[in-house]
Amino acid sequence: MRILILGGDGFCGWPTALYLSHKGHSVAILDNLIRREWDIELGANSLTPIAALNVRADAWEKLSGRPLQIFIGDLQDYNFVSNAFQDFRPEAVVHFAEQRSAPYSMIDRSHAVFTQVNNVVGALNVLFAMREYTPDAHLIKLGTMGEYGTPNIDIEEGYLEIEHNGRKDVMPYPKQPGSFYHLSKVHDSHNILFACRIWGLRATDLNQGVVYNVDTEETNSEEALYNRFDYDGVFGTALNRFCAETAIGYPMTVHGVGGQTRGFIDIRDTVRCIEIAAMNPAAQGEMKVYNQFTEQWSVLQLAERVQSVAQQMGLHPEISHVENPRVEKEDHYYNAKHTKLIDLGLQPHLLTDETIHGLLEKAVRYRDRIKMDLFPARVRWS
Amino acid sequence: MRILILGGDGFCGWPTALYLSHKGHSVAILDNLIRREWDIELGANSLTPIAALNVRADAWEKLSGRPLQIFIGDLQDYNFVSNAFQDFRPEAVVHFAEQRSAPYSMIDRSHAVFTQVNNVVGALNVLFAMREYTPDAHLIKLGTMGEYGTPNIDIEEGYLEIEHNGRKDVMPYPKQPGSFYHLSKVHDSHNILFACRIWGLRATDLNQGVVYNVDTEETNSEEALYNRFDYDGVFGTALNRFCAETAIGYPMTVHGVGGQTRGFIDIRDTVRCIEIAAMNPAAQGEMKVYNQFTEQWSVLQLAERVQSVAQQMGLHPEISHVENPRVEKEDHYYNAKHTKLIDLGLQPHLLTDETIHGLLEKAVRYRDRIKMDLFPARVRWS
Repeated sequence: MRILILGGDGFCGWPTALYLSHKGHSVAILDNLIRREWDIELGANSLTPIAALNVRADAWEKLSGRPLQIFIGDLQDYNFVSNAFQDFRPEAVVHFAEQRSAPYSMIDRSHAVFTQVNNVVGALNVLFAMREYTPDAHLIKLGTMGEYGTPNIDIEEGYLEIEHNGRKDVMPYPKQPGSFYHLSKVHDSHNILFACRIWGLRATDLNQGVVYNVDTEETNSEEALYNRFDYDGVFGTALNRFCAETAIGYPMTVHGVGGQTRGFIDIRDTVRCIEIAAMNPAAQGEMKVYNQFTEQWSVLQLAERVQSVAQQMGLHPEISHVENPRVEKEDHYYNAKHTKLIDLGLQPHLLTDETIHGLLEKAVRYRDRIKMDLFPARVRWS
Repeated sequence: MRILILGGDGFCGWPTALYLSHKGHSVAILDNLIRREWDIELGANSLTPIAALNVRADAWEKLSGRPLQIFIGDLQDYNFVSNAFQDFRPEAVVHFAEQRSAPYSMIDRSHAVFTQVNNVVGALNVLFAMREYTPDAHLIKLGTMGEYGTPNIDIEEGYLEIEHNGRKDVMPYPKQPGSFYHLSKVHDSHNILFACRIWGLRATDLNQGVVYNVDTEETNSEEALYNRFDYDGVFGTALNRFCAETAIGYPMTVHGVGGQTRGFIDIRDTVRCIEIAAMNPAAQGEMKVYNQFTEQWSVLQLAERVQSVAQQMGLHPEISHVENPRVEKEDHYYNAKHTKLIDLGLQPHLLTDETIHGLLEKAVRYRDRIKMDLFPARVRWS
């Protein structure tokens, strides 16, 4: 299958590109490399060294014998998008190419506006390009579990049957996102559902949980293929950041009481979920929605898991409850459904001590690259 | 009260500005005059002659003795917005300043992108300016009944109590908007709810129905104060367009069977609803939502009402069922609640033959200005 990976240079996009290439698909990457620019803006870096896109793509071709076609440009530039679609003629389009950090979107007005315009216009341009050039292709769009917020009822997969005043309908699940970034994904979901409905496009919206772990079999096969390992307060996420902190004896930064419960997924399952979605395209006019995570954890539970494994490795992990920079509930009901991908064949990598051990080992190996002042989450919501 | 009317040169904004000024409020208008540019782009015009903003504002001051402060500029320009907020220090901000035509948003990709960026970024800039300069002010934001779509259950006012798997929550009412324009308003609603929640802003989101009639007592007091009367296929709406068509013997253009049912409101009630909202500000952190319409009609029913009045006037009205350019249900359940504004004191102008008579008279008086080729709705959804 010809699969175009939008954002294929990023944390989820790169391992997905290699995994699908390894599985025999014809893979192209479209990326504007802006994730690397945000590192420069924030003075941040990946804990692991990462090669330039052309270098890592060459390394992959040398290793696997499988080329990756590369399109460098911005989804907001429709001429560029048009040319890429006409050139590659994708059968599936995997869309990771959005600004994906909640704190980044909350830095100030211009970052909020940038995030929403970048994400919404990028996705609109993809929809229009699909309509124009590849109307039968399948859009696989990354959303986030954060679109749902933390309602007091069970979270379903995208749609909810509602009975009200004696009548029934199946409606889009009501969304209560918690940042300008999460809001941008809600905007996308509404736009995509509409495009499917009026133009007959096919789409699958994947509401992904927080991704942990870093490498897949493919990206781990040599250093030139390594995936990025974000540990900073803006792009780093719970479990991975805890491992980086522990590697240099910095206390794990749990926001508030740490009762915030979320869905989590191993990056090795992310790449497999994308494959499953691609193998099961939506019908014409349909927007499927899957909740893409495998387990629920509270932030404090994750810190305790890391603490336990780190102690066995002779490290001295501490947990520090720091002031929560976000406006969010720290103790709440949370029960989110996630059976659809399992039903389609996902065999989850549940969080093991071995996985945490591997992350801690990698963090210790590259500990000299860690800039400690990047750990604190300094962007405040209010 | 110091009230800033964003979009105060437009179809709803201008009569609202005069009404609130007449009621003794200190009113300022902020507008980039782009609605007049869209007429140029589309080769369209108002059926009634309308004066330039500075001319009509001067005429109002001369008539009423009450000045209108004017800020000419774009909500997407944050420096301009900042200066206006610091200068005027509004206590209430009425936000009409969005691209408000569904067909305009569906012309092509660039009009879709323009509509969403213009509306979303404009509203974001207003939220950030309120947070920075007038955190206690009250945002009165025009949404649309079209945000809800046509669900098979009753439409509530903004929120819905949902019982699911034995648990309950009050959630934002699920939205199923029918154009890129309507989608932009849904995006706004999500952004505003979030800003209220995390920053403690106050907002009232008014989901307005289709507005009919043209003038209020204030705008009708002399020709220099006349409101615009849109009759073209892009900006004209059902009842007003039917009157313009009938005035020159053009058959009323009903899309498809005409069973599309919507909420409608007289513009004299629009201005009163804004006043009611301003007099009843939301609490800090609250986003109130009212459905701002007074009656439900199907499009065909409206055409028949116009037909009946026109016949009494000796006109020869015809109804023509033309191909529906939109993707929408033409026969559907529709029951939308609209009690909150009534409870706060709105005394509706229900649709009378006299109102239709007045519209037909005005259309006949200015019939020489009508460009017949503007009637057909040529923008297709699919």
